Amino acid sequence: MLRIIIINGPNLNLLGRREPEIYGEDTFEDFMIHLRGKFVDDDVDLTYFQSNHEGLLLDKLHEVGFSYDGIILNAGALTHTSVALADAVAGIETPVIEVHISNVHKREAFRHHSYISPVAEGIIVGFGLRGYELAVQYFL
Amino acid sequence: MLRIIIINGPNLNLLGRREPEIYGEDTFEDFMIHLRGKFVDDDVDLTYFQSNHEGLLLDKLHEVGFSYDGIILNAGALTHTSVALADAVAGIETPVIEVHISNVHKREAFRHHSYISPVAEGIIVGFGLRGYELAVQYFL
Amino acid sequence: MLRIIIINGPNLNLLGRREPEIYGEDTFEDFMIHLRGKFVDDDVDLTYFQSNHEGLLLDKLHEVGFSYDGIILNAGALTHTSVALADAVAGIETPVIEVHISNVHKREAFRHHSYISPVAEGIIVGFGLRGYELAVQYFL
Amino acid sequence: MLRIIIINGPNLNLLGRREPEIYGEDTFEDFMIHLRGKFVDDDVDLTYFQSNHEGLLLDKLHEVGFSYDGIILNAGALTHTSVALADAVAGIETPVIEVHISNVHKREAFRHHSYISPVAEGIIVGFGLRGYELAVQYFL
Amino acid sequence: MLRIIIINGPNLNLLGRREPEIYGEDTFEDFMIHLRGKFVDDDVDLTYFQSNHEGLLLDKLHEVGFSYDGIILNAGALTHTSVALADAVAGIETPVIEVHISNVHKREAFRHHSYISPVAEGIIVGFGLRGYELAVQYFL
Amino acid sequence: MLRIIIINGPNLNLLGRREPEIYGEDTFEDFMIHLRGKFVDDDVDLTYFQSNHEGLLLDKLHEVGFSYDGIILNAGALTHTSVALADAVAGIETPVIEVHISNVHKREAFRHHSYISPVAEGIIVGFGLRGYELAVQYFL
Amino acid sequence: MLRIIIINGPNLNLLGRREPEIYGEDTFEDFMIHLRGKFVDDDVDLTYFQSNHEGLLLDKLHEVGFSYDGIILNAGALTHTSVALADAVAGIETPVIEVHISNVHKREAFRHHSYISPVAEGIIVGFGLRGYELAVQYFL
Amino acid sequence: MLRIIIINGPNLNLLGRREPEIYGEDTFEDFMIHLRGKFVDDDVDLTYFQSNHEGLLLDKLHEVGFSYDGIILNAGALTHTSVALADAVAGIETPVIEVHISNVHKREAFRHHSYISPVAEGIIVGFGLRGYELAVQYFL
Amino acid sequence: MLRIIIINGPNLNLLGRREPEIYGEDTFEDFMIHLRGKFVDDDVDLTYFQSNHEGLLLDKLHEVGFSYDGIILNAGALTHTSVALADAVAGIETPVIEVHISNVHKREAFRHHSYISPVAEGIIVGFGLRGYELAVQYFL
Amino acid sequence: MLRIIIINGPNLNLLGRREPEIYGEDTFEDFMIHLRGKFVDDDVDLTYFQSNHEGLLLDKLHEVGFSYDGIILNAGALTHTSVALADAVAGIETPVIEVHISNVHKREAFRHHSYISPVAEGIIVGFGLRGYELAVQYFL
Amino acid sequence: MLRIIIINGPNLNLLGRREPEIYGEDTFEDFMIHLRGKFVDDDVDLTYFQSNHEGLLLDKLHEVGFSYDGIILNAGALTHTSVALADAVAGIETPVIEVHISNVHKREAFRHHSYISPVAEGIIVGFGLRGYELAVQYFL
Amino acid sequence: MLRIIIINGPNLNLLGRREPEIYGEDTFEDFMIHLRGKFVDDDVDLTYFQSNHEGLLLDKLHEVGFSYDGIILNAGALTHTSVALADAVAGIETPVIEVHISNVHKREAFRHHSYISPVAEGIIVGFGLRGYELAVQYFL
Repeated sequence: MLRIIIINGPNLNLLGRREPEIYGEDTFEDFMIHLRGKFVDDDVDLTYFQSNHEGLLLDKLHEVGFSYDGIILNAGALTHTSVALADAVAGIETPVIEVHISNVHKREAFRHHSYISPVAEGIIVGFGLRGYELAVQYFL
Repeated sequence: MLRIIIINGPNLNLLGRREPEIYGEDTFEDFMIHLRGKFVDDDVDLTYFQSNHEGLLLDKLHEVGFSYDGIILNAGALTHTSVALADAVAGIETPVIEVHISNVHKREAFRHHSYISPVAEGIIVGFGLRGYELAVQYFL
Repeated sequence: MLRIIIINGPNLNLLGRREPEIYGEDTFEDFMIHLRGKFVDDDVDLTYFQSNHEGLLLDKLHEVGFSYDGIILNAGALTHTSVALADAVAGIETPVIEVHISNVHKREAFRHHSYISPVAEGIIVGFGLRGYELAVQYFL
Repeated sequence: MLRIIIINGPNLNLLGRREPEIYGEDTFEDFMIHLRGKFVDDDVDLTYFQSNHEGLLLDKLHEVGFSYDGIILNAGALTHTSVALADAVAGIETPVIEVHISNVHKREAFRHHSYISPVAEGIIVGFGLRGYELAVQYFL
Repeated sequence: MLRIIIINGPNLNLLGRREPEIYGEDTFEDFMIHLRGKFVDDDVDLTYFQSNHEGLLLDKLHEVGFSYDGIILNAGALTHTSVALADAVAGIETPVIEVHISNVHKREAFRHHSYISPVAEGIIVGFGLRGYELAVQYFL
Repeated sequence: MLRIIIINGPNLNLLGRREPEIYGEDTFEDFMIHLRGKFVDDDVDLTYFQSNHEGLLLDKLHEVGFSYDGIILNAGALTHTSVALADAVAGIETPVIEVHISNVHKREAFRHHSYISPVAEGIIVGFGLRGYELAVQYFL
Repeated sequence: MLRIIIINGPNLNLLGRREPEIYGEDTFEDFMIHLRGKFVDDDVDLTYFQSNHEGLLLDKLHEVGFSYDGIILNAGALTHTSVALADAVAGIETPVIEVHISNVHKREAFRHHSYISPVAEGIIVGFGLRGYELAVQYFL
Repeated sequence: MLRIIIINGPNLNLLGRREPEIYGEDTFEDFMIHLRGKFVDDDVDLTYFQSNHEGLLLDKLHEVGFSYDGIILNAGALTHTSVALADAVAGIETPVIEVHISNVHKREAFRHHSYISPVAEGIIVGFGLRGYELAVQYFL
Repeated sequence: MLRIIIINGPNLNLLGRREPEIYGEDTFEDFMIHLRGKFVDDDVDLTYFQSNHEGLLLDKLHEVGFSYDGIILNAGALTHTSVALADAVAGIETPVIEVHISNVHKREAFRHHSYISPVAEGIIVGFGLRGYELAVQYFL
Repeated sequence: MLRIIIINGPNLNLLGRREPEIYGEDTFEDFMIHLRGKFVDDDVDLTYFQSNHEGLLLDKLHEVGFSYDGIILNAGALTHTSVALADAVAGIETPVIEVHISNVHKREAFRHHSYISPVAEGIIVGFGLRGYELAVQYFL
Repeated sequence: MLRIIIINGPNLNLLGRREPEIYGEDTFEDFMIHLRGKFVDDDVDLTYFQSNHEGLLLDKLHEVGFSYDGIILNAGALTHTSVALADAVAGIETPVIEVHISNVHKREAFRHHSYISPVAEGIIVGFGLRGYELAVQYFL
Repeated sequence: MLRIIIINGPNLNLLGRREPEIYGEDTFEDFMIHLRGKFVDDDVDLTYFQSNHEGLLLDKLHEVGFSYDGIILNAGALTHTSVALADAVAGIETPVIEVHISNVHKREAFRHHSYISPVAEGIIVGFGLRGYELAVQYFL
């Protein structure tokens, strides 16, 4: 059985709460139910972890990074500022796919640069929540 | 009753301890007593929160950001480096006033830029601890 | 009696005339009446000066800068381009508070830099006309 | 029936010929057979177009951009230099997914910037030829 | 008889097709009819050439650049990226007027720079299709 | 009757005096006579204003900017340094056409940037004094 | 007795686990045993603290920074991004020596800048684990 | 008889008033008496003009710039920001010597650049008021 | 027999036509006759190809790049802007020598950078047409 | 016996002479006596060389760089400007430790960059003369 | 008696030899005779030293810098590149006047910056050889 | 008889000694024998000079620069840092060809810029020692 974890960074816990008329009222936990349903016939174990704490994200990467088969990482704003997260991605063995819900290249210039991209296996940007789904499909 | 919270970031807990001959021996907690006294006749509840952890500051902003009437945020050094804090300020509903005790524009160039300013309601810089007082006055 | 002067720079005379459906039909002179009313019980003399001429602004700063108790300066567009005004602020004795009506950090990049900030006593940005009021309160 | 076209830019015709011990001896035409096989049960028409001429790429985008259901664009080196291609992508109606075979963020700095990303529907980078497959899956 | 040619670069063939509710349903060919009508009494021959191919634009400049009396050039996106076009303009004898339909200075920063401007006879920006008319008037 | 004003900035009063063997001995006032003659049959009132004082240029823009039909502005060197003039152009209602006599893009790099261009209706550069004429033609 | 603490930042807990064929199978804890053995005859108490959490590193600096005799700080990736850590180092009284195991100047450009260096007592770079030993020797 | 004028820009009228314990209590007018005394035996007419208005400085340069034998210009803060003054210096016939009282290269970075230097006859920096004297000596 | 091809980019077909009083009236075809004459005793086949079309240059590089013994490439203005040409040079097997007729380092700053240089076998700049001759000599 | 040489660059011969009330009256030669005394029991030969001539420093590096066991190099101001010294360090076989007496990161920005650091074995900064001692200890 | 030395850097020995039709056939030694003649009545000893060797210039500065009354330094091209010379000027006690014969601000951008200016007593630029004379006059 | 000199700068004396398994065991002196042999039938005198001292290189350029027929200059690392060498090349009369053994454009960014290129007759880069040969051929 394939073990895959989705790790979300700061502020992504606000999904479903912030501007629900736009993003809908579904939280990421709701989306996880949908995602697991989609891959119910595949031999895959999908875990989810979110934290606003860079330190906890690092701890989690270290914890899963030598035993899991795949990591799907949306580091949120830390994408653009955290060398530490990039070093963790480079230091572990499990391949990491970087995902962004929105098209960061349409936003402020400081969001165009990612410390994580050069050490990621692949990058998926701008497909909304479907980006996570594509990442799972890649690992299967 | 108006609910206002003052949130201070990293190293601001050293106030009163660091160079007391200059900054005095009063801690921020002492200042809070003075501040609450000043607005004792106003229908306002003044809370104080300080942390050296970006993650705890984010958690707190999420916690109070949909129910409080005003947030006074001095993110300290994170002002200049944390996109995550700025995203939190943009993502919550409570208006946020950015305060800096010293005149950051007299200091190193990297302190002249703030990720928080573009998403703040207003900015008050260089008035010492009186900056917090002016921020409270604005909310009243 | 405290003598305080508000000095406004270029284009601020258009207030009340430009886009009145947004900014209202009140001119800065109307606002001065409101402001003086607010501090009628305080022993304070509030003067107002506006000019589109950098030279006249410099002359005025020199004139009042060795006798007044406080200067509230909104240099408008000159904030971002005039080293001369900054030198004047640094050369006089009266403390100067820099005020901006709008949140300049939400606007074009060239408005993020102020030559005046490093020599100002304090800076108040983004509170609309209330910023002037907070500045007077500080001087009192 | 869904009509999708894959458009490849300069030098991508060298695939299978250049360093075959690394990239294999398969050409992109070989890959297209594999790709069409993969989606043989889906109601999808997969077309392929490659050119080393920016002008022909523009002509093709104009030709298919008001009738096709999806465009998968790997502009190769033009990604980093062609404002014209980006304007074409912005000017047509069919959504465009940007794909890169290698992880461009591991390469020279001038490959980190894409004129196309800000006008693309989504971006898939670094998954090898499988990136095209993920893009087709997204459109289905 | 004065021989003048209007040369349009990439994507300008989309005029009339893209966002017709804004730009109208008239194509540039329609506009040429209007333009020729306007100068019907002048002894002037107005030719029109458009291409998405930088190479064809260069060939055309070389072809007309030693015999025509005036060239009106809107190089579209190539304005900002093509040193080759600028070199061609500098290398031929016919004076070239650079025209842009929209005000490029209101758009992205990379559109503020033109390789062609330093070698053009004159530059007309932001007057819509009327810019071409002013250019013809200048040559007359 | 159409009311149009030509506003010239610093040093443009030297025309006809500086290097007359190159620029000729005609002053701008001489040119105004020629210009008015050219449009004598049109229902247009052509006014001329020149000043070396940024403040007077601002005052004039405010004075005519809510009643005239067109402003033709050559701000001279202030084009490259005056945010205040650009703010005035943005703040008034009369459309403003930016004109430069010489091709500024052939000169020093600091002359390639104009604060006024992004807020101008259109820009005409490098046609000598004929640029003013084209601007008048546009307004008619 | 001299009290000295070694504080390591993010990802340094991976030592001994990551690429053991290169870095060896010894963890930093193993190295501490070696280090304490080396200075067994000196009157020195050597403590070790590691965390992936910037907040905990700040808390620790505050805790020891007014009583210990020396701090040896390898902030890992935070070296290049954390103004907060630098402010803490500047705010405490105990002298801090900055150590880096690898020669950061041989690596990516963003690793060449350290926020901590300007406030450190001294800097030791590129000596492997022996750098910590040299730092202890300095304090003795 | 040689006609030489000293032209001082913004804030230089504060001399003698600002920090008299450092700069002395002499005004520039006092210095002019000293200067005229020094050259009393030379056939030279020394005029002095100061203004805080860029426009008046431009007017004065135009007025004297075709008849005087020498101009000594200390444009103060306008040195670093005024293209208009530099254009005036370039446009007149009288040679201009640029003088600065303090060593601007010891001060903020924005004071290291002068728009006037490239069009000046010569530059004298950092000699205090004696710089004016050296400039007069050069003209004699 | 050695097979060598000279490939010239945009605008180099104007040689002999543009400013003949300076560059002479010889075209590059004339020069080829001279060049072939020079190496008539060597066992070498000298081919010539010129195009204003980047696409055709790419096609030609692909065509000859796996069988010819040497390529002498003067990409003209594309040298400074075309990543695609550089990628083609890197992707083929035949060694490529970059030649420039004029000394590009004496010209505009944007001509100082070449995308092709890092992937070229060698670079010859500023020797006029003799540069091609030196390149042939190198291959022999 | 270990052969180690200390090589000091420009101006370091002023030690003991310049500002003796701060740096003391000891010259580097005095310090060498102290240093040799410190390591009198170690089997080490400590040589010292200083020159203000880059060329002599290069000659010395070449002379000792293939036979000595260690080089301790403080290149002084040449650290920040001399690519030649860095190339020499890279070209010889003896490992080189870079030492700086003061904390260069507290000084002007141009002192923060070292051409030598990327080719040095290790770097010791800010420990005063004790930095040389630590470097010797490392070699032992 | 005042002891003053003129120190000239690289290439200034070519004076009188290079382009004599422009610069004249006088060498700097000729000029020294003229200069000494000019100040024959003053109690001043004028020495001259020139070298193309940075090291010799440094040695000379150290030699005279603690006993002479004035140094007039034209470091030639080293002005723009030598931190070592600037450090020497800062480290000695004799005041140094920086002189440049030509107006460096009219030349290439890299000549606009001087490492020596911030540590010089004063700066004289663009007066030809007369600049040295003004410098001597200042010291008298 | 043609007099040509090859001048090599810093570290080029290490040739044959450094990494002989790559560069071979031949020194530049060995290469000179080969080179002289190659041109034994030409009426040419080939001299060789190498120094690690910028000053000696300048002296040599001055010495030969008014009588020799050609200079072949490989300034080594000084290429990128020495304005003085470039000034010498510009100041002498003998034409100078700049040669680099390796392809500097494949190396660190600071090696891509040459102060000498803009004043050189021509530039030859990346051909190994054969570059010197091509330079001699050019002079013949």
